Amino acid sequence: MRNDSRQPNMLRDVNITTNVNKHAEGSVHIQFGDTKVICTASIEERVPPFMKGQGKGWITAEYSMLPRATHTRNQREANRGKLSGRTMEIQRLIGRALRSVVDLHALGERTITLDCDVIQADGGTRTTSITGAFVALCLAVEHIAKHHKFDRYPITDFLASVSVGIIDEVAMLDLNYEEDSRAKVDMNVVMTGSGKFVEVQGTGEEAPFSREELNELLALAEQGIHQLIDAQKQAIGAAASRIRGE
Amino acid sequence: MRNDSRQPNMLRDVNITTNVNKHAEGSVHIQFGDTKVICTASIEERVPPFMKGQGKGWITAEYSMLPRATHTRNQREANRGKLSGRTMEIQRLIGRALRSVVDLHALGERTITLDCDVIQADGGTRTTSITGAFVALCLAVEHIAKHHKFDRYPITDFLASVSVGIIDEVAMLDLNYEEDSRAKVDMNVVMTGSGKFVEVQGTGEEAPFSREELNELLALAEQGIHQLIDAQKQAIGAAASRIRGE
Amino acid sequence: MRNDSRQPNMLRDVNITTNVNKHAEGSVHIQFGDTKVICTASIEERVPPFMKGQGKGWITAEYSMLPRATHTRNQREANRGKLSGRTMEIQRLIGRALRSVVDLHALGERTITLDCDVIQADGGTRTTSITGAFVALCLAVEHIAKHHKFDRYPITDFLASVSVGIIDEVAMLDLNYEEDSRAKVDMNVVMTGSGKFVEVQGTGEEAPFSREELNELLALAEQGIHQLIDAQKQAIGAAASRIRGE
Amino acid sequence: MRNDSRQPNMLRDVNITTNVNKHAEGSVHIQFGDTKVICTASIEERVPPFMKGQGKGWITAEYSMLPRATHTRNQREANRGKLSGRTMEIQRLIGRALRSVVDLHALGERTITLDCDVIQADGGTRTTSITGAFVALCLAVEHIAKHHKFDRYPITDFLASVSVGIIDEVAMLDLNYEEDSRAKVDMNVVMTGSGKFVEVQGTGEEAPFSREELNELLALAEQGIHQLIDAQKQAIGAAASRIRGE
Amino acid sequence: MRNDSRQPNMLRDVNITTNVNKHAEGSVHIQFGDTKVICTASIEERVPPFMKGQGKGWITAEYSMLPRATHTRNQREANRGKLSGRTMEIQRLIGRALRSVVDLHALGERTITLDCDVIQADGGTRTTSITGAFVALCLAVEHIAKHHKFDRYPITDFLASVSVGIIDEVAMLDLNYEEDSRAKVDMNVVMTGSGKFVEVQGTGEEAPFSREELNELLALAEQGIHQLIDAQKQAIGAAASRIRGE
Amino acid sequence: MRNDSRQPNMLRDVNITTNVNKHAEGSVHIQFGDTKVICTASIEERVPPFMKGQGKGWITAEYSMLPRATHTRNQREANRGKLSGRTMEIQRLIGRALRSVVDLHALGERTITLDCDVIQADGGTRTTSITGAFVALCLAVEHIAKHHKFDRYPITDFLASVSVGIIDEVAMLDLNYEEDSRAKVDMNVVMTGSGKFVEVQGTGEEAPFSREELNELLALAEQGIHQLIDAQKQAIGAAASRIRGE
Repeated sequence: MRNDSRQPNMLRDVNITTNVNKHAEGSVHIQFGDTKVICTASIEERVPPFMKGQGKGWITAEYSMLPRATHTRNQREANRGKLSGRTMEIQRLIGRALRSVVDLHALGERTITLDCDVIQADGGTRTTSITGAFVALCLAVEHIAKHHKFDRYPITDFLASVSVGIIDEVAMLDLNYEEDSRAKVDMNVVMTGSGKFVEVQGTGEEAPFSREELNELLALAEQGIHQLIDAQKQAIGAAASRIRGE
Repeated sequence: MRNDSRQPNMLRDVNITTNVNKHAEGSVHIQFGDTKVICTASIEERVPPFMKGQGKGWITAEYSMLPRATHTRNQREANRGKLSGRTMEIQRLIGRALRSVVDLHALGERTITLDCDVIQADGGTRTTSITGAFVALCLAVEHIAKHHKFDRYPITDFLASVSVGIIDEVAMLDLNYEEDSRAKVDMNVVMTGSGKFVEVQGTGEEAPFSREELNELLALAEQGIHQLIDAQKQAIGAAASRIRGE
Repeated sequence: MRNDSRQPNMLRDVNITTNVNKHAEGSVHIQFGDTKVICTASIEERVPPFMKGQGKGWITAEYSMLPRATHTRNQREANRGKLSGRTMEIQRLIGRALRSVVDLHALGERTITLDCDVIQADGGTRTTSITGAFVALCLAVEHIAKHHKFDRYPITDFLASVSVGIIDEVAMLDLNYEEDSRAKVDMNVVMTGSGKFVEVQGTGEEAPFSREELNELLALAEQGIHQLIDAQKQAIGAAASRIRGE
Repeated sequence: MRNDSRQPNMLRDVNITTNVNKHAEGSVHIQFGDTKVICTASIEERVPPFMKGQGKGWITAEYSMLPRATHTRNQREANRGKLSGRTMEIQRLIGRALRSVVDLHALGERTITLDCDVIQADGGTRTTSITGAFVALCLAVEHIAKHHKFDRYPITDFLASVSVGIIDEVAMLDLNYEEDSRAKVDMNVVMTGSGKFVEVQGTGEEAPFSREELNELLALAEQGIHQLIDAQKQAIGAAASRIRGE
Repeated sequence: MRNDSRQPNMLRDVNITTNVNKHAEGSVHIQFGDTKVICTASIEERVPPFMKGQGKGWITAEYSMLPRATHTRNQREANRGKLSGRTMEIQRLIGRALRSVVDLHALGERTITLDCDVIQADGGTRTTSITGAFVALCLAVEHIAKHHKFDRYPITDFLASVSVGIIDEVAMLDLNYEEDSRAKVDMNVVMTGSGKFVEVQGTGEEAPFSREELNELLALAEQGIHQLIDAQKQAIGAAASRIRGE
Repeated sequence: MRNDSRQPNMLRDVNITTNVNKHAEGSVHIQFGDTKVICTASIEERVPPFMKGQGKGWITAEYSMLPRATHTRNQREANRGKLSGRTMEIQRLIGRALRSVVDLHALGERTITLDCDVIQADGGTRTTSITGAFVALCLAVEHIAKHHKFDRYPITDFLASVSVGIIDEVAMLDLNYEEDSRAKVDMNVVMTGSGKFVEVQGTGEEAPFSREELNELLALAEQGIHQLIDAQKQAIGAAASRIRGE
């Protein structure tokens, strides 16, 4: 039995509130249990220098945690003067994952920056961020669509992410912090609405894992991601129908 | 008439929600109109090296804005690798102001760090932060009081802050962003429950101001701060009675 | 009685020597007692990127202390790799204060940078810097005037600054280091020749202050600033007549 | 056909030269085709502060490329003043992978730092680094074993890494630079001698991938890693017999 | 007798291998005994901003040591976030020395960057770097010459460098690490093929030196440099004849 | 004829004023013509960590220029966040030179830091700094001697420095800025009172130089340094007799 009474294959409560920021073109407050993240999407009508003149847009992401998002207070990265390796790894992952479901040519020469700020952390901050950032991205694309007619809708499929892991020999879905720190194998999976993998990152630092265990974890993740995509569809409403899936 | 229909001497709607973070010893979500700040208080049972062995505690503050707290997205200070002068000035002000109503000897050798993270900005982020941080500080002191009997209650008086300014020759209370950018004179006032000044910072970059104007602004600020302290009292409940005022 | 035998309402000896640097367009060595600051004004015939094309000039300031300006040696900020919050706060203040008496349109698209380098510190380095930087600024404007005819003289009023504070319940003018470290209330005032406030920054970290105390301090500051402006007039000579005052 | 005439399931030529540095306790020059990496292992008889007094050792890794390891010259990270996200991600991966086959308690309170410096890059620098660093680590452990009798041999299994990817719909092993830049799916696999996964990092930024494709890639990686471990065994000679495999 | 059995006036074994990097326009692996340096020359068809439009080229150098090039491991400068004073001093020296034998107008508006990366250090890393970088530079100029006809050959003379020092009252040539740490006087000399000095840097931190000692050291250096230039000539082959010497 | 009417073998006017700073244990304002440097010596009764417990003292130096010490204003190194290579090279040179005439064992476990701050620059800032810092160092040692009886006097010899160079084929002493920028060969020499070299740094970036030219320059430097040491003796008065010379 899990410390929050879930079955191994259950997600935590998922809650997505849209339009939580009056300035951002897209914004979301997302919760996976006690993990709470604010995701905002900001549009700029230009692309970074290395992409100029290619007729393509760009999607990028930044990730941060408030100092007291965690059990004990963390020093701000702005005070240390640099981003940690963990932060950089996560924000590279979020950006890469979102780009996999965006047709950058269809988007046109604009940049959408997704900021994922963790307000409270209880495990799974990167999967919560990806899942929420996708919704904020959809809202921002809808915002553009109000005064710009896209030839093709720039978002090509749904995208969500969840963690899975092996704890006491049992494969479990959507680990909270207490579970994450006990897991022997830990995996983050990003998947599309059409059921394909975008990222599979499994780590067995504490104990290597077999092909069978890998398969079991992937099946669990797949099931969780279907549920998350259902929650995303509710959050974005009518715009969901414009995402074809591939 | 102001762009949000207020009279010159009216505050924006003030809203203080306590215990918004499950990890922090004190936490508050505070709104002055559309300015929203999360204030958390984190307790450490030690003081910085320069204060060791003096039998006194320490209060310090940090301030930050989410990148999209503002109309256009700002670069994160962690990415630029350093804090801006504005950020440093504000967090020094918050810490100094709070220390003025804390009896550091009564607090004992512990540090309370107040984090003020601006979720959405519409003018007055520093005054909102001070007002909210005071409440988070009270909650943290109450948290200590649960298992530690203070000889003297460490908080000696209430403390709140508000901005005032002169716009189109009219003195106005609690400026929002649009007003702040038009103000000829801009002043931030921090005051105690017993009606004394802790900080008076008036700037007439656009137009110097006379002694009469200064007096008018201070009177307006005093009135606003009384109302803010009433809101703080409601937020902290019974603990309010332990703050003597001096 | 003060430790240097002054009456509470007396300034320290003020000494302003002009043209102390053969390269700078304006330069001053200024002393308030044992506080010694070199102020240089450097002209560039361009403005920062954010001001381009507006037909206006810009005034900015930098402040630093030699490592052994103080009782014990301080580490250089260049070695620590960043400016302290205190330094940033002071140089923002100096720049803002000077801009309040400059007609930036009349100045034209050029930047004047005021460097205030504290050679020896004994309290009041920021007020000494502002008072000296104003003179260096006047000399630099005169330097431009030699080969450029201004439509309007760009300096609109005199400007000086002094500190005041409450020590042992007595309001005192122009605190030295020993006094500054004992003061319960500490205030820096920047004022124009026509007697208006540009900056009022009062701090009662050690003890909040009443409206009466504030008024007493402001009166003391006003009197000191009149004397400082007299010293500035002597230093700049004939150019003084070109500053109208408003 | 691949641009270097390999079959899809063939590794590039692998070459491991040991003891290439007279100072380091373990050192290796490793080549996967034109990718050349120097791996050194440095022993310190202490652990980082956060691990003190636990009776355990620590394994950590750093990764860098010479500026002209690549087609065009890259700026040194020391000049930019910070590590890139890519570098941090890779060195975290190398350290984590190596720790998975080290019994840190058996190692005792010492740190082994693996430096992987890429002399020439042609794709697969992280997999080459992991494979070479494992050999340097073995040599360093043998170095300790000369004057210290381990209760248990600290290395618990072999460990190697290879990349796989899908190019033109074909799954291929050990991608070179040209292939890597064309691959639609790119995966790095780290595996033990006993055939278990330590890291599986698959990315389909260009095109999501199915479960079948994932399985095909993993099978290819498994086969390549067996061959790499054979090369490692030859390089370390007699010490190979001390690694039990689990 | 020296610890490696050399006579005082003997160089260590010198070995220069060219074209060790498949990407760089010029590359060399150079050894002075156990000191091993990889020197690469990278050509860019542009000059730094401060040199634009002058019709001249630029030569610059960077120097670094692998962390375990030395007896004990050194922290990477990229991790410390800045270059040490020693590194900056050495790379300024290498660049300056090489520019002394390059006709920058003849080179045309292009930049050649020499990277000197010390793989293993045993004293004399800066002299080995200069001597090797000169050869890499020649190879890069030959690379340009393949598709560009120079009016004048841009390299005007040979250039090599060696260290000399006084140990136990004896002047010695080409100090290794053990000797370098015992030397009372330490001098690095850079000289052209025509026997003129480009750099003479002598330091007597441990014991000042007389004019006679200086002369003896310079004579020793001169002899060593002639031998080094012979080794350079062999390394570059036919191109040697294009360097006129002046 | 030189632009300031000196003969080739003449120094500029040298002026040394002592005790210019009320806080520092030793302080000097030194001028070589229009080059003006403030040198302060600060004593700490401890040594850096790497020297602890050896019964020896330490001498270190820092060097900086005020932003407008030069013809055009330079950006502060504190703003750029790091020291330039030039600054580091100079402060390493100053420290090394001073240590050559200090008996660190006789000094005892204390650190003297020499700060050389260039107020106005007109060539030769490093030689002026060394010459002035030596005097500040002597004053600081005298300061210690007031309450501490040294077994041996810690300063073993006088020390001064001057630049020499070749301009229009003529060897000249003590170059000013205009001369320095035209010199084909440029050399800085540091020498003791007993006529031995501590540092000889000659650079022929523009044109290599012969042994004869080197000798002529050294002779010129030697003559200038004798004169500088005479000026130092006057500045330090009676303490001069305590410096034995070796």
